[in-house]
Amino acid sequence: MPKYVIVLIIGCLCLFGDLSRAAEPEAVRPIRVLVAYHSLSGNTEKMAHAVAEGAKGAPETQVMLRRVGQVTADELFSADAIVIGSPVYWSNMAGEVKTFIDNWQFKFGVFPEFKLRNKVGAAFATGGQISSGKELTMLSILAAMLGNQMIVVSGGGAFGASATTEGHSPGIDDQELASARDLGRRVAEVAGMVARAGRS
Amino acid sequence: MPKYVIVLIIGCLCLFGDLSRAAEPEAVRPIRVLVAYHSLSGNTEKMAHAVAEGAKGAPETQVMLRRVGQVTADELFSADAIVIGSPVYWSNMAGEVKTFIDNWQFKFGVFPEFKLRNKVGAAFATGGQISSGKELTMLSILAAMLGNQMIVVSGGGAFGASATTEGHSPGIDDQELASARDLGRRVAEVAGMVARAGRS
Amino acid sequence: MPKYVIVLIIGCLCLFGDLSRAAEPEAVRPIRVLVAYHSLSGNTEKMAHAVAEGAKGAPETQVMLRRVGQVTADELFSADAIVIGSPVYWSNMAGEVKTFIDNWQFKFGVFPEFKLRNKVGAAFATGGQISSGKELTMLSILAAMLGNQMIVVSGGGAFGASATTEGHSPGIDDQELASARDLGRRVAEVAGMVARAGRS
Amino acid sequence: MPKYVIVLIIGCLCLFGDLSRAAEPEAVRPIRVLVAYHSLSGNTEKMAHAVAEGAKGAPETQVMLRRVGQVTADELFSADAIVIGSPVYWSNMAGEVKTFIDNWQFKFGVFPEFKLRNKVGAAFATGGQISSGKELTMLSILAAMLGNQMIVVSGGGAFGASATTEGHSPGIDDQELASARDLGRRVAEVAGMVARAGRS
Repeated sequence: MPKYVIVLIIGCLCLFGDLSRAAEPEAVRPIRVLVAYHSLSGNTEKMAHAVAEGAKGAPETQVMLRRVGQVTADELFSADAIVIGSPVYWSNMAGEVKTFIDNWQFKFGVFPEFKLRNKVGAAFATGGQISSGKELTMLSILAAMLGNQMIVVSGGGAFGASATTEGHSPGIDDQELASARDLGRRVAEVAGMVARAGRS
Repeated sequence: MPKYVIVLIIGCLCLFGDLSRAAEPEAVRPIRVLVAYHSLSGNTEKMAHAVAEGAKGAPETQVMLRRVGQVTADELFSADAIVIGSPVYWSNMAGEVKTFIDNWQFKFGVFPEFKLRNKVGAAFATGGQISSGKELTMLSILAAMLGNQMIVVSGGGAFGASATTEGHSPGIDDQELASARDLGRRVAEVAGMVARAGRS
Repeated sequence: MPKYVIVLIIGCLCLFGDLSRAAEPEAVRPIRVLVAYHSLSGNTEKMAHAVAEGAKGAPETQVMLRRVGQVTADELFSADAIVIGSPVYWSNMAGEVKTFIDNWQFKFGVFPEFKLRNKVGAAFATGGQISSGKELTMLSILAAMLGNQMIVVSGGGAFGASATTEGHSPGIDDQELASARDLGRRVAEVAGMVARAGRS
Repeated sequence: MPKYVIVLIIGCLCLFGDLSRAAEPEAVRPIRVLVAYHSLSGNTEKMAHAVAEGAKGAPETQVMLRRVGQVTADELFSADAIVIGSPVYWSNMAGEVKTFIDNWQFKFGVFPEFKLRNKVGAAFATGGQISSGKELTMLSILAAMLGNQMIVVSGGGAFGASATTEGHSPGIDDQELASARDLGRRVAEVAGMVARAGRS
């Protein structure tokens, strides 16, 4: 084989290599999804596990599952997506969850650089009764994320995944767990899209 | 004057007295308005003082002005009206304020008897920017009150009194203080109506 | 009997008459509750009938049950309480219901006099899925009422009465009808309190 | 040159071509942003023009600027991003805007296929007073988009761009126009990311 042919082949391979990396960069680093929640009864924790499971179902995804008080700055900032879950206390998220969000500034200093910008965000909620605050809980979490210039999605339901835990539907049933898994997968997929776009 | 005339006059006066008490029962006990707030910079505190001032402008009104962490069970339950104020942290009320509301149950046990039922409720908020969470803060406070079967009013603005504290409108200006006084007066007046109705 | 005695008696009787009317004025005029709704499938209509039924259960109450497009200025302004019901279309009230509320100004000219001030307001909603907009529908209706300086209550649920009409809970069940009746009765009772207070 | 070398070169060039198209697909088709609004006074229209201007500032973007009643099925479905603007009527979007959103189903049949899935969505609002419904208007628009499985962003403000049009800040000022341009650019950029990711 003449030399110039070998050079040509090597050149082509280099180009090929470069381009394939550009086109399939998700091999470089997995998508990281932080699932942060508060739970006393264990109901929201069950939903959090299902969200985590759903996220792991998306290709090349790593999940960090944490109680809101345990989340470190490194976990928050290294995440491609943040999913927050709360029980409903008096028509909105628990004080513990709101305090966690407040701490994005007080402890982690996200502002004024908008350090969470372009991370994907989503929410889930559990509540004793139907129409007693699960929507407002999820909307309030999403509103905090929008204020941080995050990219927000639903999944499992119009505003996110949710479960009714008392009355005719005590605890967490299979359909509610399925909605939580749907949310996790949706979040991981959109985070994957954003990550690929950022690299291309 | 003949005797029967005197009897007649006395009889009339008695009737008059009875009826006047029935018609003006607010003489029995003043209307009590609890103004509870969180404030770091002092802005929400200024608004709280103006709400208190407005409430005192209504006849026969007593005001309890407290930081959310200081409110006792006795103050909460003896109030005819509860007005809650919060700075906006990430598009909603401060974690401290949400924790106060959560404590209505965890510390004060309002449920399942709905011990705050028929108390009058209202909200006020301060925030750095226009349209960055003051509405959602006030709506979230009112939603918690509705979940407690309280009777909810606005005043000073569509959802309550509010102030923008940065940008072109730093701090609290006279118009914002006036809206807070309007809210306080409105709350005291409606609480007066509810109290009178309860006694009549 | 001397003349001055007769004058005195007549004077006393006048006072007596005035005061007795002031003290028991609810005999004079019934409480009027307007229930206005939109419905295509008939689900929200069923809830509206139950709200009306609940309101009639309160003493001395008259109910006007109307589709939103049929409400006249006279009905709107003569009501002591207004309860609005809507199906959920894309996470909020139907366009027909929002247009009805907009017409409070465009057709009925409620502003700037705030002609609905101190009327009692409440909301109910039906939606296919749980947590898919019923809360936001009710909150949006209540927010419009607060902007009109109405006095707002819940009933039957944290934000008002609601029904889930698809999935595992098709149509309107007995529990949902009961929550609608609870709302109707609650609204009529609070409207009665406000009316009594206004007359005392 | 031996035949196999030519085959090799052609093969490499094919690979190169394929990959380069995969890596830079945004050359193929511009990002399409639909800006849909309602306006009587012209204020929301001014904001809509500024949103459109901002979107055009992003590379390779086409803008369709339409009144809500004019949007065709083709425009709705061909858009990569949809930005909706409304004046505040009684604490929420105008009935005309809600009816437009309802028509996504009634006229355009987006459900049950979720035909707007993964389009980028955002909102803007104008209102006479501060804190009188602009937030709830934007949140309600975003909630409708989330129910359609769209990808939602803010820009120009915590929930989107907004302008206060009466009181101390009549009409639309330069800062408000700048926030609208920020929103338009933000939406176009995120829509570009999603489009690139979808093609890679």
